[in-house]
Amino acid sequence: MKGRIRPDFFFSPGSVAVVGASPVKGKISNVILESLKDSGFKGAVYPVNPRHDRINGLECVPSLNDIRGGVDIAVFAVPASSTPGLIREAKGKLRGAVIISGGFAEAGGAGEALERELKELAGPVRIIGPNCMGIYDTVSKVDTFFIPAERIKRPGPGGLSIISQSGSFAVTAMDELAAEGIGVARVISYGNKADVNEADCLDMLERDAHTTAVAVYIESIDDGRRFVKSASAVSAKKPVMAIKVGKTEASAVAARLHTGAMAGRYEFYKAAFKKAGVIELNGYEDFLSACKAFGAGLAHARGNRVMIITDGGGMGVAIADECAKAGLTAPPLDAMLEKSLRRIFPPYFAAGNPIDLTGSATDETFASSLEMTMSGDGYDMAIVAALWGPPALTDKLPEMLAKKAAVFKKPVLICSPGGEYTRARVKLFSRHGLPVFPAPEGAVRAAGMLAKYARRTR
Amino acid sequence: MKGRIRPDFFFSPGSVAVVGASPVKGKISNVILESLKDSGFKGAVYPVNPRHDRINGLECVPSLNDIRGGVDIAVFAVPASSTPGLIREAKGKLRGAVIISGGFAEAGGAGEALERELKELAGPVRIIGPNCMGIYDTVSKVDTFFIPAERIKRPGPGGLSIISQSGSFAVTAMDELAAEGIGVARVISYGNKADVNEADCLDMLERDAHTTAVAVYIESIDDGRRFVKSASAVSAKKPVMAIKVGKTEASAVAARLHTGAMAGRYEFYKAAFKKAGVIELNGYEDFLSACKAFGAGLAHARGNRVMIITDGGGMGVAIADECAKAGLTAPPLDAMLEKSLRRIFPPYFAAGNPIDLTGSATDETFASSLEMTMSGDGYDMAIVAALWGPPALTDKLPEMLAKKAAVFKKPVLICSPGGEYTRARVKLFSRHGLPVFPAPEGAVRAAGMLAKYARRTR
Repeated sequence: MKGRIRPDFFFSPGSVAVVGASPVKGKISNVILESLKDSGFKGAVYPVNPRHDRINGLECVPSLNDIRGGVDIAVFAVPASSTPGLIREAKGKLRGAVIISGGFAEAGGAGEALERELKELAGPVRIIGPNCMGIYDTVSKVDTFFIPAERIKRPGPGGLSIISQSGSFAVTAMDELAAEGIGVARVISYGNKADVNEADCLDMLERDAHTTAVAVYIESIDDGRRFVKSASAVSAKKPVMAIKVGKTEASAVAARLHTGAMAGRYEFYKAAFKKAGVIELNGYEDFLSACKAFGAGLAHARGNRVMIITDGGGMGVAIADECAKAGLTAPPLDAMLEKSLRRIFPPYFAAGNPIDLTGSATDETFASSLEMTMSGDGYDMAIVAALWGPPALTDKLPEMLAKKAAVFKKPVLICSPGGEYTRARVKLFSRHGLPVFPAPEGAVRAAGMLAKYARRTR
Repeated sequence: MKGRIRPDFFFSPGSVAVVGASPVKGKISNVILESLKDSGFKGAVYPVNPRHDRINGLECVPSLNDIRGGVDIAVFAVPASSTPGLIREAKGKLRGAVIISGGFAEAGGAGEALERELKELAGPVRIIGPNCMGIYDTVSKVDTFFIPAERIKRPGPGGLSIISQSGSFAVTAMDELAAEGIGVARVISYGNKADVNEADCLDMLERDAHTTAVAVYIESIDDGRRFVKSASAVSAKKPVMAIKVGKTEASAVAARLHTGAMAGRYEFYKAAFKKAGVIELNGYEDFLSACKAFGAGLAHARGNRVMIITDGGGMGVAIADECAKAGLTAPPLDAMLEKSLRRIFPPYFAAGNPIDLTGSATDETFASSLEMTMSGDGYDMAIVAALWGPPALTDKLPEMLAKKAAVFKKPVLICSPGGEYTRARVKLFSRHGLPVFPAPEGAVRAAGMLAKYARRTR
């Protein structure tokens, strides 16, 4: 890595150029120009195209060399074959390149040679990509994700950062998080990683004060030792979760076609994650649960003891089953607590763990159950499975629960399965900082990760 | 079971009485009267209450005995303590009772004695419940589920029937299915099962021509041998899936508090399911996936070979990983097929399994990929992971895929993770009979169940 400048400037560029900028709405380069405007990026933006004077109201420059004083980041959305040449020409004028275009190593043949060219250019210029979405950053306001916001919503500011070899994985997670009010700090889709790789990204995020948790999607790691070193440094400071895809021979072939990745044996990844203190995620649902659990800015858990509060008995039992699978315990109420609860409960409420408030549940019985069980030392976190059938439940419930949670500073996870009425209530919970999971499994997976992180930091 | 009339009349009552009917909107008995009107039940409906002349525009009778010619089903939403007496009084006038009220065995003490009374009454009167939601039936139009349709939507007609010891589980699944356009035939929430139990329900569904698939939620089985006999008879005719909750000691305690169930060892249930040809479901997500897979009226699969088509490379690799876990294979394209696809694809599409249509995907490339791979003998079903980012994709995609699927008569499952724009597209798929899963795991779980059923019927 000697002689290479640190890629941290990607998080705070003063200027961004879009090479091959097109005035045609919907074209990748045009969407990027739109995104840079919509996201509120305050630096200079340069469309680069010798055939136009102005694009989207911005003055065009014929080439990168025509930008006086150079440019921090140039985004390339031009054919693979012309990209290395353009970077070479801009030598000395350019700190970083984000190469969106595919057609490199993942395409084989001539593409492999082009990617080798990129690797040789890297050093004085740092390169993200090729075959990637680039950067979405709520701190610097850079947004090179080339899908219109109408189709893929951008999350607001938050502490979670995502680094991903797959653009679609990152962008889909972003869209889901945005829909549920969970914010992010930095998202980097690094694709074929001709230069900047997962370890570089981890180093950047270790140094980044805006990032409080990191989620990683990996198809392949080039240098296992360096990954463990970088991941360990981050995980000593903040939670790091990672999913490795392409676990089987068949799916590893798919990964190679996807980002040119040589996946290698899954067992090595598993061992590397463990050594580096990285919480392993299994599948997309796990990835999303992790993003929600650590992105919602919950208090950290101190252990694995879960209190389950519900108004749907069967759902409570199902959650208890899942807890056992996820290495969580759901200890019974102690005698004192049970007595206090029975005093305020009608006889047909179940005062156990789960607490079952039945179809007669009210906002108040939910809130007081949460307060009474969580304010003592018996439980480390709560899963509240609020089914919206009971007629007495109102839209005030989410705020009431959030207020209680703020007092005892322990994670409260919401499980809220159901159809239209229920799905419309998800926003109420997330507006008050409580992450919502559409099924018991998701909430329990998230609780399991919080408990794993508690074990690491204890 | 001798001397007991078959409970099948619960599926085709000519008349329904609501005992303890209240004119107060929102009260359980009033919601049930509303539901019976909204659902379009064509038989006679009798509110029973000596203190009123009319309720909701219907003539009230003072007691069940005042109904000339008797009544097929009486729904009881009165305190537990008065229920056995009311049933006793109506002797000879009543074929079936649905007892909504709790406060029986699950409450312990006096409740246990009341439940014994119910058991003694059962025989000339068949009883569903107590502590249950009763029946939701799109054939007979009976709806005793006492949650207003504003909060819990009712699914339309379909072939899937659900029997559940837990009301909340059944009602939540119904609400989710309704939101996704999947219909049901009969839903029975049987609660504490003082009389009609899971085996009776299975027998009824075996004989029911409207039911094409059965999903079961179980906390406890009273008579294992009878369950295996009944379940085997159904599974010989149509797919039967079951979830057993209360698997651990702790969660079994919760189940007892919930429906008075003595759960017993999980291993026995596992063995019973296997013996009876029942596909075991693990958790709520599995339950929902099964309901969607078998409720959508898909063609039956003939094997476990899955074709994966996507426009998000990373999502495709993640699906391939999940397939391996679920006992599915994703065989590579044969040389001929690969060549034909390459002929119509641009060079940067991945012609493998998964097929990756990238961000340049169109409705047409999705549809022709599906057609070309599924019309031959190489694959038994397809998972199409349509991410909605690519700008060329339009709202015509679902219909185009459904039309192709109708030709080759193999299951096509949609995986469509994402936020607002994506979630709004779910309805388009379900309107055309294609079940949609919000994450790779759900789609693969569903595919796995279709393959398991294929193995059974081969």
